Amino acid sequence: MTENRGQLVIIGGAEDREGDCKILREFLRLAGGHQARIVIMTVATGLPEEVGETYTKAFERMGAEDVRIVDTATREDANSSTALEAIEKATGVFFTGGDQARITSIVKDTELDAAIHKRFAEGIVVGGTSAGAAMMPDIMIVEGDSETNPRIDVVDMAPGMAFLPGVVIDQHFLQRGRLGRLVSALAQQPAVLGFGIDENTAVVVKGNQFEVIGEGAVTVADVANITHCNVDSLLKDEPLAICGVKLHILPHGYRFDLEKRSPIV
Amino acid sequence: MTENRGQLVIIGGAEDREGDCKILREFLRLAGGHQARIVIMTVATGLPEEVGETYTKAFERMGAEDVRIVDTATREDANSSTALEAIEKATGVFFTGGDQARITSIVKDTELDAAIHKRFAEGIVVGGTSAGAAMMPDIMIVEGDSETNPRIDVVDMAPGMAFLPGVVIDQHFLQRGRLGRLVSALAQQPAVLGFGIDENTAVVVKGNQFEVIGEGAVTVADVANITHCNVDSLLKDEPLAICGVKLHILPHGYRFDLEKRSPIV
Repeated sequence: MTENRGQLVIIGGAEDREGDCKILREFLRLAGGHQARIVIMTVATGLPEEVGETYTKAFERMGAEDVRIVDTATREDANSSTALEAIEKATGVFFTGGDQARITSIVKDTELDAAIHKRFAEGIVVGGTSAGAAMMPDIMIVEGDSETNPRIDVVDMAPGMAFLPGVVIDQHFLQRGRLGRLVSALAQQPAVLGFGIDENTAVVVKGNQFEVIGEGAVTVADVANITHCNVDSLLKDEPLAICGVKLHILPHGYRFDLEKRSPIV
Repeated sequence: MTENRGQLVIIGGAEDREGDCKILREFLRLAGGHQARIVIMTVATGLPEEVGETYTKAFERMGAEDVRIVDTATREDANSSTALEAIEKATGVFFTGGDQARITSIVKDTELDAAIHKRFAEGIVVGGTSAGAAMMPDIMIVEGDSETNPRIDVVDMAPGMAFLPGVVIDQHFLQRGRLGRLVSALAQQPAVLGFGIDENTAVVVKGNQFEVIGEGAVTVADVANITHCNVDSLLKDEPLAICGVKLHILPHGYRFDLEKRSPIV
């Protein structure tokens, strides 16, 4: 991971958008506060106007003067000059919720994708909630039943937008009982760390550390030192066995070292 | 733990009662099969006749010839000679679901309690599902929100029926997203092991080992070697932080050594 890239605000969904908006406020502050130029990417959602409006209002209430919606319904849209110009000026890019597969199928490997990554490397903040959180790693959970036993067929993985390599992210984590789904994903990608982010909760990634903000907790699952896993001999509808998973449950204010794979206490 | 005590069949709720009844079948087999004398304890439920009937039919369909319902609505009932005689002859005692606090408030420290423990020490099998599973340890989860962040105030603990000391048991585990609740319980009882038992899944305890049977998995959580926990400085509505929890997710056929706190692979 490079040290001079920007920051990430990765939200587990259902963040406060009408009260004191602690998480969105932090995103805006990191993007430059009053001086921020925010782009809201509504590509994930089927209701871009409604969702875009909600975030525009929230950021404007907090004093943001330059908030634009970039909605891309097609890959052509994602190569348009309007979209690219907005990103070129942005100090913060925010991905709404919806379907993470829409984000990658429409934006990944377009000029817009390259432009956001370029700005990110220059130090701007990139945020996302729910689907906009799931797409952050280089490999993402596309779909999969929650509330079922860990099985390989409950979770489909696909390439993500690669803002945060080396992890896999699940959202609405405790609210939707997604431990089984996250562990199933990790069993297939044992080198990565799993982040289960609760609703109205976020990780703010700076360099090789993150800090938790918000109401809930972030569950970090680490399978690097497991003592047993049956994934290699498993047919896809059979239940997963995995022994020695390490879990850290981190609420507001706790920090984590991504390189050492360890909480900073 | 004594070696000559009986066996336990601890079920995470919603076990099959009408199909091939794999878990109830194993309970019946351990209790002596055709020769079994089964007592169904309906104390936990508000619908004792209906629930008692369901289990009676299930066991009779599998060939059990002697199935009796013992329903105790009061502590007087739990000291009655009818109940005591039924237990004295039983080779298997099965606790239905309902409310685990009803089991302990009505049965704990009665003659019936002593009689079941005496028969258990003599080698009979004791089973329970849902509330009948939660009550098995010496300390049990009474109630607590699922699907919320781990907080001390989400979980109330109380003395259990003490068939399996040294653990705490939660049921409907993945189905109801109870990781936070189980971890909150463990933070207050760090010496014990946590068992999160999925629906239609059971642990069969023999001596110092258990084996998993059924459709789902058993999640064993071990906080013996945690590196950080904020429970001592926590006000009750504040979120719990806990680092270094060890998890084992064990499906059908997997065994676990309770003394070594380790899966047998």
